[in-house]
Amino acid sequence: MPRLVMKFGGTSVANLDRIKRVAKRVGVEVAKGYEVIVVVSAMSGKTNELVGWVNETSALYDAREYDAVVSSGENVTAGLLALVLQENGIEARSWQGWQVPVKTSSAHSAARIEEIPTDNFDAKFSAGMQVAVVAGFQGISPEGRITTLGRGGSDTTAVAFAAAHSAERCDIYTDVDGVYTTDPRVTRKARKLDAIAFEEMLELASLGAKVLQTRSVELAMRYKVRLRVLSSFEEMSDNAGTLVCDEEDIMESNVVAGVAFSRDEAKMTLVSVADRPGVSAAIFGPLADAGVNVDMIVQNIAEDGRTDMTFSLPVDQVARAEKAMAEAKDSGDINFHDLIADTEVSKVSVVGIGMRSHAGVAAKMFEALSAEGVNIKVITTSEIKISVLIDRKYMELAVQALHDAFELETA
Amino acid sequence: MPRLVMKFGGTSVANLDRIKRVAKRVGVEVAKGYEVIVVVSAMSGKTNELVGWVNETSALYDAREYDAVVSSGENVTAGLLALVLQENGIEARSWQGWQVPVKTSSAHSAARIEEIPTDNFDAKFSAGMQVAVVAGFQGISPEGRITTLGRGGSDTTAVAFAAAHSAERCDIYTDVDGVYTTDPRVTRKARKLDAIAFEEMLELASLGAKVLQTRSVELAMRYKVRLRVLSSFEEMSDNAGTLVCDEEDIMESNVVAGVAFSRDEAKMTLVSVADRPGVSAAIFGPLADAGVNVDMIVQNIAEDGRTDMTFSLPVDQVARAEKAMAEAKDSGDINFHDLIADTEVSKVSVVGIGMRSHAGVAAKMFEALSAEGVNIKVITTSEIKISVLIDRKYMELAVQALHDAFELETA
Repeated sequence: MPRLVMKFGGTSVANLDRIKRVAKRVGVEVAKGYEVIVVVSAMSGKTNELVGWVNETSALYDAREYDAVVSSGENVTAGLLALVLQENGIEARSWQGWQVPVKTSSAHSAARIEEIPTDNFDAKFSAGMQVAVVAGFQGISPEGRITTLGRGGSDTTAVAFAAAHSAERCDIYTDVDGVYTTDPRVTRKARKLDAIAFEEMLELASLGAKVLQTRSVELAMRYKVRLRVLSSFEEMSDNAGTLVCDEEDIMESNVVAGVAFSRDEAKMTLVSVADRPGVSAAIFGPLADAGVNVDMIVQNIAEDGRTDMTFSLPVDQVARAEKAMAEAKDSGDINFHDLIADTEVSKVSVVGIGMRSHAGVAAKMFEALSAEGVNIKVITTSEIKISVLIDRKYMELAVQALHDAFELETA
Repeated sequence: MPRLVMKFGGTSVANLDRIKRVAKRVGVEVAKGYEVIVVVSAMSGKTNELVGWVNETSALYDAREYDAVVSSGENVTAGLLALVLQENGIEARSWQGWQVPVKTSSAHSAARIEEIPTDNFDAKFSAGMQVAVVAGFQGISPEGRITTLGRGGSDTTAVAFAAAHSAERCDIYTDVDGVYTTDPRVTRKARKLDAIAFEEMLELASLGAKVLQTRSVELAMRYKVRLRVLSSFEEMSDNAGTLVCDEEDIMESNVVAGVAFSRDEAKMTLVSVADRPGVSAAIFGPLADAGVNVDMIVQNIAEDGRTDMTFSLPVDQVARAEKAMAEAKDSGDINFHDLIADTEVSKVSVVGIGMRSHAGVAAKMFEALSAEGVNIKVITTSEIKISVLIDRKYMELAVQALHDAFELETA
């Protein structure tokens, strides 16, 4: 029988009434003939409570104990869902990570799944089990200690099970009903996508469309797991949500899939840096050490052996970056005339695998922004994405203009 | 190095401040040179919350899933205490039941501990571990499922670890400071006992002095584990609390150790029962089936082939008992003229291993009650206990009189 993985996040299992709704959805898939593996998160708020207690014990806590404590929330949900499924007449049982076992690395609180043997479930499904309820987010290290995969790790658990069991699909139930062409709060013309390619999803996710954990999408891409994102609060239907899949599985798509943005960016420019081999390392090394997440980087053509270096970063890291640069200058590691920070910028990006085969996307983007009088401060491009930094006050205007220009309202 | 087991109940670990107090107490024992095994319960209220959720899922829930859910509370406390101990500079780690492993029977939610291998801890203690924090109340079945030992099972976990590790002592920290000669609310003359024999403790515990789980005392008696009951809310001292130990370890003791009582008892009499072989089974079989906990049983001498059968039971089970007896009469299984229930009685008992070697304890007891005008309705005796049923209104008076008569105020 085909296998299906269903994953339910914290708000979907926040209390017993919601767990009962989840059980009904699972029952529908069982009735269709699937062998179902359900991956659950902790009831919403529970993990935060546990993390809060751990943080109270010590600033430098033992990550192994953190994992032992924090993983308990998922165990509760898994047991309760199994009980409700049984009450509905479905053969179900719960599995904690160590029982499967979900074998992970020893990198506690950020462990990577290394292997999920399938013989355990195979035998139980053959013996009549209809649903395996798995506590997400957790595994067991080679030393026999409990590990966790990091926040949002239940998505990764779900995809890993889908890959190991060659599941027909991995349905991620969440509190949004799919992936949109852009944030509907910025333009009401935003449209839910029926399908999106893994690569596009990765670019959109890392740009702030927080629907799926980036790691889970990477894993799905590697193992070609068909992911579906859908809402646990809407009626079920076969074409609900958004399918995240291999680009070959998308019959026809727009050149641009969506417009992403990041509101609170800053732009820093080191004016007149001595241009010598190793200068980039001298600049970005200290920034990385200071925990600054540099995003876009642009270097001007050098004149008279000096150049300007511009980069973007989250606006709340500007002070840290300025301190790191001042120290690097004082210690003589780098030399620059001035440091200019612009804290009133936003990043807007268009993303689409269609760009690979269609020329003129950049030109069309710049034209649309120009027509609205939006000045572009920095540009970076990748194979399937073009990003610009603009003044923050134009951000909504820019997103709306690009959404119109690439006709994202219509499929 | 000598090993010590310390067990902390739910109120002792109710929040992080209390867990920090617990860590200090553990630190004191570590400083004395003990290798310490700490057994913890769930933070108070947590287990009830989990049990409540399970009860909401189904009336006839799967006990395996109940155990998976309900055991999670202890895991949280164990991890948190290990973290606080580490913060105090102590080498500590937490262990869940399956990690030790605490091998139990498959009787989910009422499992019995079958084996606790010690090699795991032995190796870790040798490698520098100072404290093993064990999640109480749980184990693992031969099938690899999580089991629990039933409510209060953490006491049993602690004693089982003490037995397996030949611990010097097993200290049970609770919210009372020891075992008393009787309930201090009944007489202010009640005195805390420095030591009490296992057999006495068993009689006192089952009579309602709810300090220790009966099973844990039985286990301690079988393996000669020296138990100490003491309060986690008082200052530490070497002779705090009450030592529960083998009678040989008690140097000198009173003939009577304490006066126990059970307030809400009832007395039922089947009048003029046909006295034939098997009549007791015909009466008490249906009562057991109806869930009635019969305690004292007295049968009069038969006259003309008929007898009166009197027994005591908790007052809230009288209706059930009457129904069961009426049905048994209707079906012809037993035959009696009348059924009389007296719901206004209490049981008072004197308990002491000294009775074995001292005659006249019963006489002294009856004399003391008689001097106060207390009429005795039923008497039963065992080797170390004499119990009487009396009118409830005299209960406090009887306890006080017996406490005085046996001079329990003075050691």
